[in-house]
Amino acid sequence: MGKIILASSSPRRALILRQHNIEFEVIPSPYKEDHSVTAFSYEFVENLACCKASGVIPLLKEPSLILGADTVVVLDGKILGKPKDYDEAFSMLKSLSGRKHEVVTSIAIIESSGEKEKIRSVTSFVEFENLSDEQIDFYIREFKPYDKAGSYGIQEMPEGYIKVYEGSFENIVGLCGQTVVEMLGEINAECRA
Amino acid sequence: MGKIILASSSPRRALILRQHNIEFEVIPSPYKEDHSVTAFSYEFVENLACCKASGVIPLLKEPSLILGADTVVVLDGKILGKPKDYDEAFSMLKSLSGRKHEVVTSIAIIESSGEKEKIRSVTSFVEFENLSDEQIDFYIREFKPYDKAGSYGIQEMPEGYIKVYEGSFENIVGLCGQTVVEMLGEINAECRA
Repeated sequence: MGKIILASSSPRRALILRQHNIEFEVIPSPYKEDHSVTAFSYEFVENLACCKASGVIPLLKEPSLILGADTVVVLDGKILGKPKDYDEAFSMLKSLSGRKHEVVTSIAIIESSGEKEKIRSVTSFVEFENLSDEQIDFYIREFKPYDKAGSYGIQEMPEGYIKVYEGSFENIVGLCGQTVVEMLGEINAECRA
Repeated sequence: MGKIILASSSPRRALILRQHNIEFEVIPSPYKEDHSVTAFSYEFVENLACCKASGVIPLLKEPSLILGADTVVVLDGKILGKPKDYDEAFSMLKSLSGRKHEVVTSIAIIESSGEKEKIRSVTSFVEFENLSDEQIDFYIREFKPYDKAGSYGIQEMPEGYIKVYEGSFENIVGLCGQTVVEMLGEINAECRA
């Protein structure tokens, strides 16, 4: 199958792969995703995951399998990207307050030879409690969620912020490990067949 | 053939396409090329051109042909990238002084559907005069070549800096128009066949 390269600088995604006993190396992708296109579609997020994966091809020293992933937070059919400042983070969290939204992570695993690619998207749901302005302000000051789509990371949310979530928790964090395991298993099987 | 998208924010490349009567729209690529890999190979530069082209796929509104290009300056088998500051620009121009080097531009034209891709590289040669430190200092202060591979743009070089060049001048600027015309002609012919 070749070495597995994680085309992401996210320590959270790396941790998830390790927890699933997947051996890999990290090469951050030179592809900087642009969430200024705000209308959500699976195709858009899957294309971003592909671009992140294929973006490391020029940097490889040997044939590899590359895993790229992109996570978006979707509210009312619109993508909430990474907030550029405090005000944007505040208004994002305010818009999520008391409501249910989707978190979609698309995963692309491609061969550096360009021969094979697998793409899958996983959707989870998160419902926030009604958050006071003080809670929102506290969270932003304490956790500085400027690198996080939708202005929050579920793994660091204090008690009383999340009402409920449905689906894969890891997927909300940024990568559903079980899905990666399945995709790698399929690729492995295809290589042997 | 679909609309042609230039996946480059370079006004020089846009000008060259216009001069060849090619109609296009510009969508700058979110792919930020990394020339920190300094060993030159055609494969490396061609991969970068591909990444730049495919990087705009998520941003497209309709099926298109996408043109990505990457230009590198090569001296003694090593890539000179964009200089990060005055000192780096100075030492690059100093190393080019009195010597002949290669300029390689790789061009990737891909269909957004992923069905077809054409990749071509064009090589030109440039020989610098022996440059005094004063000439190098003047050029950097006057032209601030921080966005240019190898720290210079041949189209703005003052008299007495370039001894001779061989091959396509446009290619040294950043895109050989004639090659693009040929590539588009081939794609057109294949579409009709």
